[in-house]
Amino acid sequence: MVDMTDGEPLGVAVVGAGYWGPNLVRNFRNAREWTLVAVVDLDLARAREVIGGSTDVLATNDLDEVLARDDVDAVAIATPARTHRGLVEQALRAGKHVLVEKPLADDVESGRSMVEAARANDLVLMADHTYCYTPVVQKIRELVEDGSLGEILFVDSVRINLGLVQPDVDVFWDLAPHDLSILDFVLPGGLRPTGVAAHGSDPLGAGKACVGYLTLPLEGGAMAHVHVNWLSPTKIRQMVIGGSRRTLVWDDLNPQQRLSVFDRGVDLVQQSVDIADRAAATISYRLGDTWAPALPEYEALSRMVGEFAGAIREGRTPRTDGAAGLRVLSVLEAAQTSLRARGALVEVAAETPTLELIR
Amino acid sequence: MVDMTDGEPLGVAVVGAGYWGPNLVRNFRNAREWTLVAVVDLDLARAREVIGGSTDVLATNDLDEVLARDDVDAVAIATPARTHRGLVEQALRAGKHVLVEKPLADDVESGRSMVEAARANDLVLMADHTYCYTPVVQKIRELVEDGSLGEILFVDSVRINLGLVQPDVDVFWDLAPHDLSILDFVLPGGLRPTGVAAHGSDPLGAGKACVGYLTLPLEGGAMAHVHVNWLSPTKIRQMVIGGSRRTLVWDDLNPQQRLSVFDRGVDLVQQSVDIADRAAATISYRLGDTWAPALPEYEALSRMVGEFAGAIREGRTPRTDGAAGLRVLSVLEAAQTSLRARGALVEVAAETPTLELIR
Amino acid sequence: MVDMTDGEPLGVAVVGAGYWGPNLVRNFRNAREWTLVAVVDLDLARAREVIGGSTDVLATNDLDEVLARDDVDAVAIATPARTHRGLVEQALRAGKHVLVEKPLADDVESGRSMVEAARANDLVLMADHTYCYTPVVQKIRELVEDGSLGEILFVDSVRINLGLVQPDVDVFWDLAPHDLSILDFVLPGGLRPTGVAAHGSDPLGAGKACVGYLTLPLEGGAMAHVHVNWLSPTKIRQMVIGGSRRTLVWDDLNPQQRLSVFDRGVDLVQQSVDIADRAAATISYRLGDTWAPALPEYEALSRMVGEFAGAIREGRTPRTDGAAGLRVLSVLEAAQTSLRARGALVEVAAETPTLELIR
Amino acid sequence: MVDMTDGEPLGVAVVGAGYWGPNLVRNFRNAREWTLVAVVDLDLARAREVIGGSTDVLATNDLDEVLARDDVDAVAIATPARTHRGLVEQALRAGKHVLVEKPLADDVESGRSMVEAARANDLVLMADHTYCYTPVVQKIRELVEDGSLGEILFVDSVRINLGLVQPDVDVFWDLAPHDLSILDFVLPGGLRPTGVAAHGSDPLGAGKACVGYLTLPLEGGAMAHVHVNWLSPTKIRQMVIGGSRRTLVWDDLNPQQRLSVFDRGVDLVQQSVDIADRAAATISYRLGDTWAPALPEYEALSRMVGEFAGAIREGRTPRTDGAAGLRVLSVLEAAQTSLRARGALVEVAAETPTLELIR
Repeated sequence: MVDMTDGEPLGVAVVGAGYWGPNLVRNFRNAREWTLVAVVDLDLARAREVIGGSTDVLATNDLDEVLARDDVDAVAIATPARTHRGLVEQALRAGKHVLVEKPLADDVESGRSMVEAARANDLVLMADHTYCYTPVVQKIRELVEDGSLGEILFVDSVRINLGLVQPDVDVFWDLAPHDLSILDFVLPGGLRPTGVAAHGSDPLGAGKACVGYLTLPLEGGAMAHVHVNWLSPTKIRQMVIGGSRRTLVWDDLNPQQRLSVFDRGVDLVQQSVDIADRAAATISYRLGDTWAPALPEYEALSRMVGEFAGAIREGRTPRTDGAAGLRVLSVLEAAQTSLRARGALVEVAAETPTLELIR
Repeated sequence: MVDMTDGEPLGVAVVGAGYWGPNLVRNFRNAREWTLVAVVDLDLARAREVIGGSTDVLATNDLDEVLARDDVDAVAIATPARTHRGLVEQALRAGKHVLVEKPLADDVESGRSMVEAARANDLVLMADHTYCYTPVVQKIRELVEDGSLGEILFVDSVRINLGLVQPDVDVFWDLAPHDLSILDFVLPGGLRPTGVAAHGSDPLGAGKACVGYLTLPLEGGAMAHVHVNWLSPTKIRQMVIGGSRRTLVWDDLNPQQRLSVFDRGVDLVQQSVDIADRAAATISYRLGDTWAPALPEYEALSRMVGEFAGAIREGRTPRTDGAAGLRVLSVLEAAQTSLRARGALVEVAAETPTLELIR
Repeated sequence: MVDMTDGEPLGVAVVGAGYWGPNLVRNFRNAREWTLVAVVDLDLARAREVIGGSTDVLATNDLDEVLARDDVDAVAIATPARTHRGLVEQALRAGKHVLVEKPLADDVESGRSMVEAARANDLVLMADHTYCYTPVVQKIRELVEDGSLGEILFVDSVRINLGLVQPDVDVFWDLAPHDLSILDFVLPGGLRPTGVAAHGSDPLGAGKACVGYLTLPLEGGAMAHVHVNWLSPTKIRQMVIGGSRRTLVWDDLNPQQRLSVFDRGVDLVQQSVDIADRAAATISYRLGDTWAPALPEYEALSRMVGEFAGAIREGRTPRTDGAAGLRVLSVLEAAQTSLRARGALVEVAAETPTLELIR
Repeated sequence: MVDMTDGEPLGVAVVGAGYWGPNLVRNFRNAREWTLVAVVDLDLARAREVIGGSTDVLATNDLDEVLARDDVDAVAIATPARTHRGLVEQALRAGKHVLVEKPLADDVESGRSMVEAARANDLVLMADHTYCYTPVVQKIRELVEDGSLGEILFVDSVRINLGLVQPDVDVFWDLAPHDLSILDFVLPGGLRPTGVAAHGSDPLGAGKACVGYLTLPLEGGAMAHVHVNWLSPTKIRQMVIGGSRRTLVWDDLNPQQRLSVFDRGVDLVQQSVDIADRAAATISYRLGDTWAPALPEYEALSRMVGEFAGAIREGRTPRTDGAAGLRVLSVLEAAQTSLRARGALVEVAAETPTLELIR
């Protein structure tokens, strides 16, 4: 069903015309690699509204009809998390590649089932970790991969804001998926903490955590930490990734210098012979230049839909595949457990290993 | 021995002429309420150097001699933490009031013993929590006390820097005493968390935590959190205190607007009758003005030595008394325990109750 | 022709479907007070494109046809400055109220003729000084009007950026109309400098000034100054208005604190008797609080089209009338003269006095 | 009299123990190259106070006595500007090298006379342009000299503050010497504007300009501009130097990134054949990286007194010689003239050419 010819666009249907769906619709429409075939929503009028005046695209509330079509190669799911598993597995069974909003599902078991279903059917399952396709996160991944930072020593991420207190999820499920999906994308080997400790508080009595902290010890002694907060009067979106060679600071609210790379840090320069002198003898400080790489300008979502097409055409795992979505989900679920255990460090569910798709 | 006449200055000896001692010397000298009688250091040359050309002040390495003098009403201890207990209790036994550097001691048992000794001897024991006497922290306490912030909902404190990795203590013992002593000073009722969870990492292999996070659940559902870090290439010293009425942000590195008070926040405005609508119905947002109060300019230490004199003359507990030092110490010790227990929430040692000094 | 009933919307035609026209189209469409009747452009296809799928609005290249219609009460002109006079006067002769893009015209003589034509025909001529309708500028005007700032002492405006070097105009004509129209809006009595000195440079050899400074002495000893620059690698949009009571700083690129009002300044507190002591005796400093008023959120253009409707219905001068546009134009023309005279201070052309429209 | 042996320190007397003198005293004392011989002040008690307890240094109010001493090789003058000429020429006649505070004198004629006197006597006359010896200005000079910026296109300097309104000088004479001496130091060939236009205002009625702007057209079409202001509630110290290759921004109040070098700008890339297409065809934009060089830490004054010693020993012109002081003074005097001529562009007094000292 998938046309492997580069020239022919792939057909896609977007399922869910709520908050995020229209962004997907716009980007699939603008992409050379894609033809938008249909928009599916239980609310047919809403589907029509999202499509606008055009008559080329089908508006429907009948998913079965859409999945039966030959000109639909892939489906993008933008519905609430609790519906993901059913819709994704239905689409996979119909032989469609699937892109799914984050979080992948509302529990790890569902997520794992979805990942296995895609694998069994030899189809692409991709998580829409949009932030990973921004120019700045692409650059950060590059800097980690090419060794500019050296070994990762610590990660500190802050995402705070006077935010909309959500009716159905707490501040971890609302905000932390951003931080976690970015960490999964940039850390060598993905996000595989050796445990998760979560501390949250609900000082308003809203019935869920509005302020939260995640601690994620990583292999090799590093630690990642995430601060999410709905009650902060000021908005901060900042991530620091400390490395043995350099440290980067990403300040997303400073468009004039979003990304800074500091050649500053502490080194353990030598092993002292005299054990007693160790600390004194072996510490040195680097106080070098700061560098702010220029970042290209493009819309993250357009790059994301391009990656989805590329993975399908080339029969390969996309950069943010179902397994990535599952790793993020596993951390969120572990955090939930930790929260109930008063912040105790809990293990993250064992992961289904990532396998390359083979045709 | 203490002269209660307002006009007559009190006599003081400074013990320890190392890093901090000279600051005490300078401020005692400049204070109308004090006469600097002696500087004591094992290194007599160092003591002389700190005094300078003056011949009015005694330089000595003999503490007994100093404690025997009638013109010495009080002693200020600026020596390493492990020596505090011995020196403080010796001075108290000699009938001297005592000011002691933070941390109060190197373990809670010592601290408690010192507090009890002061009480038993009816003498002032004061902790040199210098930050509490800065214009900005004085103002913050005022804003908490006069109800400007309402009920405290959360506190987030960040103190990070490319810092000197200390040979003898970890990043918690080096930096967090600042945050904790400030919290003790501004929180109504002092720092009395219901538990402490500490997460630290030593990614350099320096033999001690260089990056650390403290989580302190407070009574009533609020939570305080402290981030200390020696490896950050950028320097941040920021504390956010979120309240039910207003939230303040103290950015110590922004001299042009060190303190901002935001009339912004989230309110639970009403209890909905229909349980299902609860979250939707009861949340509202305040988006009011920001206000940056002008702060007076003075040196914190000069105010601190003034408070020491005031407490002695008026026979009252100083604002940062031994009990305050003990509360800070108890949290540090609990953090140490939590660190060894992989971040588990541990209880803070029961405190000796604060009693007003009665003459 | 104008329907004075509040309930009935006014009809408007937008002339010019280039860069700015579509914004006018969108805002007239969304406004309760307006019905968009037609979009006129020499390029008929472009007019159609701007309208989109709708068939309610006429797309045409025939202005005469539009001006002949009874359901068109007003015309909004968004064409190049050199065409303004002809189009505006044609519309006024046809009995239409007119909104015109800035600058009002490309020379003062044309501007004055347009203002007089509107007056003679008893019609509204309004300048689209969009910035004046932003929340922040509205607030600034309020603060000036209610005396919060006291007497204006100085104004310093900086608008610099790595900007598009324009083919047809220099940096003064490109950027300064923003600053000048704002000054006209907020200064008591409008922008009536006692002279204009302009300094510009063309270091690239682009054939026009790319860096420019305007000095505008005001009555009563105050001075306004404007810095515009296309070559700055950093973007700054900042205006400081110094007053005898308070001083405000508007930093348009700081969304978290766009407007700050400082109760800080220098006072001449008393007239000394002894003439020799004058300066020493009479200076004092205020070092009070800073206040950042919350600003509402709305689109400036929607408020602007509302003001246009209001002025028409109420038969009054709009807040940014033709005379305001003429004052801005006069300063620009004087700047041009000064530039040719190596920065000499030149007079601003005498203005046609503002008269209230009387029906 | 001057000892050319590297090992032997030079003897110096500081004349004037007011505001700045003590800084000179401290730095001459700490410098290996210097022996502080005497401090001269009409107020003998003040001279003694500045020296402190030491008995090695002579405190005196008798300049003749000091100038007669063989162990005084050089004199540093830190008295009011109007006294400079007399003191400097007296010292030169006595065969002493001279360092003098800025401004060099209070009028150009005096300054020129001093420069000529030094030349005639084959002695070093150095201007204490302290800022030029800061790490950041040294770096800026390097970046200009090594071609990193390319050709200088524009300079914009802002030095504003809630400043002390001075009793004897206006804001230009108080603040602009900093900007001008820096410009003289970093511009290739020194500060040689083709004219000076000054605009000032005195909105408080303080009897002198409190807000001022200087425009300095440079050879080759570039322009420098300086904004000085005593009435600003916020403190800004920023200089932008735009170059054809890169542009630097020095923000002196941002210790974490004092100096940024932007590889961003506008280029005229080619001369179009078709004259009509010129602007469109020939403009291109660079949007490259930003780089913040690490700066060493040292005290500017210590480097300045080192340069003074170096110039004397090596028989060469110091980096900020009398001629540099004279160029700054000439611009200040021209500014004064321009101010009286309502901002007209005035010429700068012809300069005595800089000659290398030859022994």
